[in-house]
Amino acid sequence: MAAVFRSASRRAWNRLPAARTFTTTTHRTSLAAVARSSNASETPLFANEPAGPHVKTSIPDQASQKAIAKLNTVFDTRSLNMLVDYSKSRGNYIADPDGNVLLDVYAQIASIPLGYNNPALLATAQSPEMASALINRPALGNFPPHTWADILETGILKVAPKGLDQVFTAVAGSDANETAYKAAFMYRQQQKRGGPEVEFTQEEISSAMENHSPGSPQLSIMSFKSGFHGRLFGSLSTTRSKPIHKLDIPAFDWPQAPFPSLRYPLEEFAEENAREEERCLQEAERIITEFHNPVAAIVIEPIQSEGGDNHASPAYFQGLREITKRNNVLMIVDEVQTGVGATGKFWAHEHWNLQTPPDMVTFSKKAQAAGYYFGNPALRPNKPYRQFNTWMGDPARALIFRTIIQEIERLNLVEHTAATGEYLFAGLERLSEQYPGEFQNLRGKGQGTFIAWDSPRRDEVLKKGKEVGINVGGCGETAVRLRPMLVFQKHHADILLDSFEKIVQP
Amino acid sequence: MAAVFRSASRRAWNRLPAARTFTTTTHRTSLAAVARSSNASETPLFANEPAGPHVKTSIPDQASQKAIAKLNTVFDTRSLNMLVDYSKSRGNYIADPDGNVLLDVYAQIASIPLGYNNPALLATAQSPEMASALINRPALGNFPPHTWADILETGILKVAPKGLDQVFTAVAGSDANETAYKAAFMYRQQQKRGGPEVEFTQEEISSAMENHSPGSPQLSIMSFKSGFHGRLFGSLSTTRSKPIHKLDIPAFDWPQAPFPSLRYPLEEFAEENAREEERCLQEAERIITEFHNPVAAIVIEPIQSEGGDNHASPAYFQGLREITKRNNVLMIVDEVQTGVGATGKFWAHEHWNLQTPPDMVTFSKKAQAAGYYFGNPALRPNKPYRQFNTWMGDPARALIFRTIIQEIERLNLVEHTAATGEYLFAGLERLSEQYPGEFQNLRGKGQGTFIAWDSPRRDEVLKKGKEVGINVGGCGETAVRLRPMLVFQKHHADILLDSFEKIVQP
Repeated sequence: MAAVFRSASRRAWNRLPAARTFTTTTHRTSLAAVARSSNASETPLFANEPAGPHVKTSIPDQASQKAIAKLNTVFDTRSLNMLVDYSKSRGNYIADPDGNVLLDVYAQIASIPLGYNNPALLATAQSPEMASALINRPALGNFPPHTWADILETGILKVAPKGLDQVFTAVAGSDANETAYKAAFMYRQQQKRGGPEVEFTQEEISSAMENHSPGSPQLSIMSFKSGFHGRLFGSLSTTRSKPIHKLDIPAFDWPQAPFPSLRYPLEEFAEENAREEERCLQEAERIITEFHNPVAAIVIEPIQSEGGDNHASPAYFQGLREITKRNNVLMIVDEVQTGVGATGKFWAHEHWNLQTPPDMVTFSKKAQAAGYYFGNPALRPNKPYRQFNTWMGDPARALIFRTIIQEIERLNLVEHTAATGEYLFAGLERLSEQYPGEFQNLRGKGQGTFIAWDSPRRDEVLKKGKEVGINVGGCGETAVRLRPMLVFQKHHADILLDSFEKIVQP
Repeated sequence: MAAVFRSASRRAWNRLPAARTFTTTTHRTSLAAVARSSNASETPLFANEPAGPHVKTSIPDQASQKAIAKLNTVFDTRSLNMLVDYSKSRGNYIADPDGNVLLDVYAQIASIPLGYNNPALLATAQSPEMASALINRPALGNFPPHTWADILETGILKVAPKGLDQVFTAVAGSDANETAYKAAFMYRQQQKRGGPEVEFTQEEISSAMENHSPGSPQLSIMSFKSGFHGRLFGSLSTTRSKPIHKLDIPAFDWPQAPFPSLRYPLEEFAEENAREEERCLQEAERIITEFHNPVAAIVIEPIQSEGGDNHASPAYFQGLREITKRNNVLMIVDEVQTGVGATGKFWAHEHWNLQTPPDMVTFSKKAQAAGYYFGNPALRPNKPYRQFNTWMGDPARALIFRTIIQEIERLNLVEHTAATGEYLFAGLERLSEQYPGEFQNLRGKGQGTFIAWDSPRRDEVLKKGKEVGINVGGCGETAVRLRPMLVFQKHHADILLDSFEKIVQP
């Protein structure tokens, strides 16, 4: 491959001292070479990025090892993937204390939208408004800043999903989901009670204080097999990703519906997949109508991310919306990982063209702020202090999200990501044709850069990624998942494709 | 009172234009006058604070009303207490958009330690380290900054409670408590299983995915009547403060023990109170040994704050520690509201002189960062990814906490708060002698400025507070709670005492 590889980035990489050299292949088609060559001159979205990855030592090497040993005395480092020197990370590139620089397509578990040390975010971080937000952290529900409406309207609410013009802010994905669940339960009980004016009964009041029904009703949230919605007690009760997330933790007796298990490539298995989705829809409706703890809401990810990047078609989600409407159950779409542009739409559920919007949409991660959007005014509880906590979000992070939104708009990053994703997917298709055993069930076509495949030796692939200069994550049992930032460009895709080929070639 | 009131602050206040004037009393003792006069020359802990409160309009007035109406279209404002202009707030004083300036002894629900727009915090907020933390938010468990050990050791861990040298960081009080509960459940099951090396059974693994026992065991956390520990599903199951916090939300079948109901003044009811505490201890142990869902841990606040500022003696907490030890149950002390100096100790549980430290201590609020401390290495789960989430805290807030700690040490603010609290309590004792009906069950003696009392017309008192220039909070059904910042001084106490007298005098 490198024989015909003429990108500026690769040349620059080769100029770096002490960079590891890799064996290369020469069977790249001339078409790919032409594409690569033109990508080399692509206008950079991020100024002064490293020209490419630079792996000079094994990872972790001495400086990292020393710091990890120190950290381990006070902090659990067993899940540590890589110690990072953020001051030396830039754009799509993440650096470690030993001088290694990797192309990062994991991006803090899909949480960095605009690249490390983004100059627009830096300006926001250094603004007087940010300083005030940091040092005068308000209890937003009681003492909001007089600028809060403006911060919401020019930021978080500017990108509110269609039909949802309200927001309840939170501090992370887990509590965004849990507060949405609480809103669903309160709404359900209010309906049952006969409206917002009907007062709680004495029995409800006293039993709630005992954690018992009817005050604390035995209602449920239905989630989906392999879904992930967080790890606090309510969210974990809806999480069905892996046993290690759930073992030994008490959980609510809530139901799970099957999530469609699609076969790839989709074009080849269209009928079979449609039958599978229909089966799953029927089973979802059966559970909603029959489960012993009545279902107040369902929660679903547009693409099950932690659970293995499992997709379903717009028709499936449309069917699910119909089922929830028909059964008076709320639909909560968890866009914590899929939201903010990476799928080629700002919100992944825009791909579905629903007739009516979801009831609530939760967000976090690449938004850097968190919360849930809603539209129906009846989802505001009937009394104050029912949905409340001390901080109720963080204006500092709301300011960051506002700048993220501005940069996404200025640079047209959603459409950009759709196009880059298309390019990247085509490259991966070529690789999967060439190495079919290594790239199984390639998925995410038309979903921006939100792409994954299954690998028979996934953990080894991720580990080897570091050796060839890329930081990549996995999900589920066997999936390699790509979660590039929104400033990921075609010339980065070339490096990434090149790196994967290096990893898998015999 | 004002007739003998000669403090610089009061004089300055009177010079302010359009300030409301108040009727005053003249029966202050000359001793108090002497105290006040000397406080006037007290060295200020916070430079360039307003000289005193300044109430020029009703609150909210036009500018606030307009902004609130705008905010209400996108954000629930029914719990709004006061719209704030943080750029004009300074030190102990909070300002609104209509130009009103109040002495703030509520401090964002006990969450502001060093005053608004504190210059040391401003320097931290404007530092390059902060900018990096804001714009490169890491997934701490996977990709910690190479400086993370240092940030922890010079910050959060520098003030770790005695015997607890480890921390798991979180983003708010609720999830600090919930992650502590998770650690307790995992520890309990590991003990039951026979140690960290014993593998999960297939039945545990498959049942956990169904939210069923044995994988998701029916264990419990025991909390205390009137306790408050947060509002997510696990924490809310331990919260027993008010029905409005709990109604319509499913809860775990977890037990609550009675919390001692002490009579005041404590000196007069020593025997009766000791009997009450003994009764509560016996009942706590009975529940621990008998409750149908075995108790893995208890969670308790040193002073029940949201629930009404309910205190118990060190002997009670010592007894509770013995009970937990005897029954192999973990003791989690929730210092979310009591921690970080306000009680005259850095951690309120230091008042107890326990023989062995609590197993876990949670923090948030005035720390501006959150998490739980622990000491026993076995409280680190036996495998990685059992206690994990994307962000696992926030380095930006850890940097803020580090500066808070430095300022507390530099200015000796814990001892300062103990002394100021003593002065303030003495003043309130005088008021309660003078107006016994208005200041009932005065409590918090020797607990710094963490002081409260019951008022037969509490909500009216809080409302009138704004009219006379003070921002005060309530808790429980009838308590007025004082939660001044750590930079609250005797001359502020004079203004506060003066204001309360204005409110209650006939």
